[in-house]
Amino acid sequence: MTTFSRLIRFLAKDGCTYYGDAILSAGVNDIAHVTRARVIEGDIFGSHQVTHRIAEVEMLLAPLARDDIGTVRCLGLNYEQHAKESNLPSPKYPILFHKPATSVTGPCDDIPVSAMAQRTEGLDYECELVVVIGKEAKDVPESGALDYVLGYAVGNDVSHREWQLKLGGGQWGLGKGFDGWAPFGPGIVSSKLISDPNSLQISTKLNGQTVQSSSTKDMIFNVAEIVSFLSQGATLLPGDLIFTGTPQGVGMGRKPPLWLNDGDLVEVSLEGVGSCLNRIVFDKLSSKL
Amino acid sequence: MTTFSRLIRFLAKDGCTYYGDAILSAGVNDIAHVTRARVIEGDIFGSHQVTHRIAEVEMLLAPLARDDIGTVRCLGLNYEQHAKESNLPSPKYPILFHKPATSVTGPCDDIPVSAMAQRTEGLDYECELVVVIGKEAKDVPESGALDYVLGYAVGNDVSHREWQLKLGGGQWGLGKGFDGWAPFGPGIVSSKLISDPNSLQISTKLNGQTVQSSSTKDMIFNVAEIVSFLSQGATLLPGDLIFTGTPQGVGMGRKPPLWLNDGDLVEVSLEGVGSCLNRIVFDKLSSKL
Repeated sequence: MTTFSRLIRFLAKDGCTYYGDAILSAGVNDIAHVTRARVIEGDIFGSHQVTHRIAEVEMLLAPLARDDIGTVRCLGLNYEQHAKESNLPSPKYPILFHKPATSVTGPCDDIPVSAMAQRTEGLDYECELVVVIGKEAKDVPESGALDYVLGYAVGNDVSHREWQLKLGGGQWGLGKGFDGWAPFGPGIVSSKLISDPNSLQISTKLNGQTVQSSSTKDMIFNVAEIVSFLSQGATLLPGDLIFTGTPQGVGMGRKPPLWLNDGDLVEVSLEGVGSCLNRIVFDKLSSKL
Repeated sequence: MTTFSRLIRFLAKDGCTYYGDAILSAGVNDIAHVTRARVIEGDIFGSHQVTHRIAEVEMLLAPLARDDIGTVRCLGLNYEQHAKESNLPSPKYPILFHKPATSVTGPCDDIPVSAMAQRTEGLDYECELVVVIGKEAKDVPESGALDYVLGYAVGNDVSHREWQLKLGGGQWGLGKGFDGWAPFGPGIVSSKLISDPNSLQISTKLNGQTVQSSSTKDMIFNVAEIVSFLSQGATLLPGDLIFTGTPQGVGMGRKPPLWLNDGDLVEVSLEGVGSCLNRIVFDKLSSKL
């Protein structure tokens, strides 16, 4: 379906923004360390080509431009061990919520924390496998579901537990939907290169210390099951993202809880894909709700 | 901000699709009965003009094209009497969930019910005031919040109570997010024409019988409060929709419950705007999940 192996979007040293196919040097596995890419021209989801033109990467951006991002679906409680640490039973069906497209940001962007999210403690990280839909999918069976996947990335489903679980009336979207609270990247690795997305190491480091370390093997619903389920009666479109849930080790699950603070560096990593390294930046408090 | 009074999008008798400014005949208050409109050219959210060209309306479409629709935010439990019939306390803050843009459909389109939504009973209606955002809004105070509103429409937050409340793990998005489950229209009435959106009659008829009848006066959070609150730390964009909650009288709140069935006609109406009349159409059951 695609001609690229590792799709990135980047600001180049020439000052322009491109889609590109990352060129990884020998021994480099993390797309975050890419320095050069072949420029891609055309429609990422349709007719496009990887050209012979090579551009120097100045900074990686979110792998899809805002206009190319559709609906952002997220699953809750999709890892066995995370359901346990949350003291909740494993779900019978995937638990769906949404983030607005304005929450999507890039692999090295700051994560802004607004006044509203500073009113109480509760800022947390969640490393997640992100599925990028490549073509329209409706009522697809599990057996063919992976054919609709463009590729995979890693993301951070940044969450404010007070707003998510208490002040938000039990609906999770508010406490997870602030601007810039869904960094993902560093690129999108074509599903051609990842034959089994359900067996990848996934982890989070907070200021260099590992705080989540698991495998997508622990997912309750695997990628094919998720894509098929979400497509029942609902059309998934090219550019839709699915954050597939987080493993154990979130700050909320610790005793005492471990909350993110201004200036913290959070790195989420996925085997075969790479990492996003984002800094938590509290907004200066000039306005009050 | 806008040059139009009642924005519609329609299939014209000439076979083309246009944005237009509805021309209402004397005594006609419901945009659903429009027969002619002045064609609008340009960007609805930016530079555009209402031309002198008049087109004949064949069929009203969703007032915004898919590409012009951003994030669809919805509030739960935002009417005092509806919170009571749901046996839930009035919320302290607006309760936010989302629908995907694929759920949006027009004022006279069918509402398809997929196999997954036919597995159990629980299909319900919810008439709602729909706020259409007209310009980018972030951290806006209540006092100026209505300046960011393009206009108002009426919508139906179609809901499957089993998937919404039970099988969906407590998150409402799945049971409300199927294709075509957010009809809205019949047009978007400019906020110039509706000085107080918090005092409008709103109702639902099921097969001609009134089943919901209330006023937006009963809303717990008014439109300015909602827009301001949702913009805290999160950017609202032109084309974002906000479904602002439903009054009492939903099928779930009745004894015995009143569920929608194949072929039912559901009409939601809002004073000063008009009505959407949609037919429930069960998909033929050819596939199973």
